Amino acid sequence: MDEALTCDAYLGGRLSISQPKKGYRAGIDPVLLAAACPARAGETVLELGCGVGTASLCLAVRVPGLQLTGVERQPDIAEIARLNARAASASLDIVTADLADLPASLRQRGFDHVIANPPYFLRSDSHASGHAAREAAMGEETPLETWLDVAARRLVPGGSLTMIHRAERLGDLLSGLRGLGSVQIQPLSPRRGRDARLLLMRARKGGRTPLRLHAPLVVHEGAEHQRDGEDYTPALTAVLRDGAALPGFGETAI
Amino acid sequence: MDEALTCDAYLGGRLSISQPKKGYRAGIDPVLLAAACPARAGETVLELGCGVGTASLCLAVRVPGLQLTGVERQPDIAEIARLNARAASASLDIVTADLADLPASLRQRGFDHVIANPPYFLRSDSHASGHAAREAAMGEETPLETWLDVAARRLVPGGSLTMIHRAERLGDLLSGLRGLGSVQIQPLSPRRGRDARLLLMRARKGGRTPLRLHAPLVVHEGAEHQRDGEDYTPALTAVLRDGAALPGFGETAI
Repeated sequence: MDEALTCDAYLGGRLSISQPKKGYRAGIDPVLLAAACPARAGETVLELGCGVGTASLCLAVRVPGLQLTGVERQPDIAEIARLNARAASASLDIVTADLADLPASLRQRGFDHVIANPPYFLRSDSHASGHAAREAAMGEETPLETWLDVAARRLVPGGSLTMIHRAERLGDLLSGLRGLGSVQIQPLSPRRGRDARLLLMRARKGGRTPLRLHAPLVVHEGAEHQRDGEDYTPALTAVLRDGAALPGFGETAI
Repeated sequence: MDEALTCDAYLGGRLSISQPKKGYRAGIDPVLLAAACPARAGETVLELGCGVGTASLCLAVRVPGLQLTGVERQPDIAEIARLNARAASASLDIVTADLADLPASLRQRGFDHVIANPPYFLRSDSHASGHAAREAAMGEETPLETWLDVAARRLVPGGSLTMIHRAERLGDLLSGLRGLGSVQIQPLSPRRGRDARLLLMRARKGGRTPLRLHAPLVVHEGAEHQRDGEDYTPALTAVLRDGAALPGFGETAI
């Protein structure tokens, strides 16, 4: 490992995640992703582009008894994910691979759930960050369409895909669904009344229920940042600190 | 005319609309559509599937000095639209035509704005209503993709399309945009915290601004229907009774 690591507490201290001090660092997004996955004990979960494993491990803490697999392209980041999985005593296998070129062992498997937090920025729209690992995590090298296609292929019939992405990619997300339906869109607004900045999307393989556009989940209290420190809404605090499922979305069977 | 007409007041009495007593009858949807169109005096507007002309005439009342054209397939409904336009002294030309087969006179024109309130229900999903005019207005005979394609073709570069539809068609709306961008989605929730039932979509021909997913506009006050009569929110009352533009959406240049 050529970089210093930090150790950060998640879910009110129930999970410790080591991650590189420099480069891409997980925020609340993987926690929200994990909170939105409807997995139940005994099921299998595949995370595409798992990074240091934050989302999969948050999910493992909330739902005991899962069999989790994470795919990560960067070997040094994959190694940290393995370290995090061991530290959490979680059943999380990390496969070092490009999601666009999965090994046969994974291509032969079907999963009950797939989760993904793809890079948020199109390479063509953003400046390279000048930091290779950060760039790989933030810049979209693999097209979003490929993420959706690989996810759909790896799901068993009726299996769920849960993804978090920037709200502005809504059109690309909905246009890229192949064989996935029963779509639920959960907008995430930074504050009440604001445009959604992020969204969670859930879809089912073979699902035929009409699309549902949920009321936004508001992240921060008040109209603007008022005081020092955090100002998360009670719903967000329950997800981030208490490891709750996402209200109105995370545990609903669809 | 083989049916009795009713005369209904819109925009706090500033507009009277005659429409068949039986069959499809306009609700608040065309009023919201009109309130979301960013047209300014002197510009041209094309309404696809204009019915008895409610949306175009609401727009004419809110924005004086527009040149409006409405396309309606059913000759008897088109005739009522002409009657409504005359009664409102509005510059609204009604063309009796199928939007999928526009006459050359329209195919040669470009419009600053297109508005549309397409039928909400897929013919395959719903029972025919047993009433021909209602069925034509409610059942989707022309694919949504065709509506979007015709709208995009008839717009001048930079021109806006504004459409109202069921929220569950969000994927079809975003997948069907050809050469349209700078998309804004305005969800309409029946009550605070509920899933969106309808949505307004605006897009610009050649637009390149990232998609914006706005906070929902809430239609009714309170958590449930509490008292007799109407319980519209103040924002909706301003649109429906005072003829205001849609807040945060209708007058914003994008």
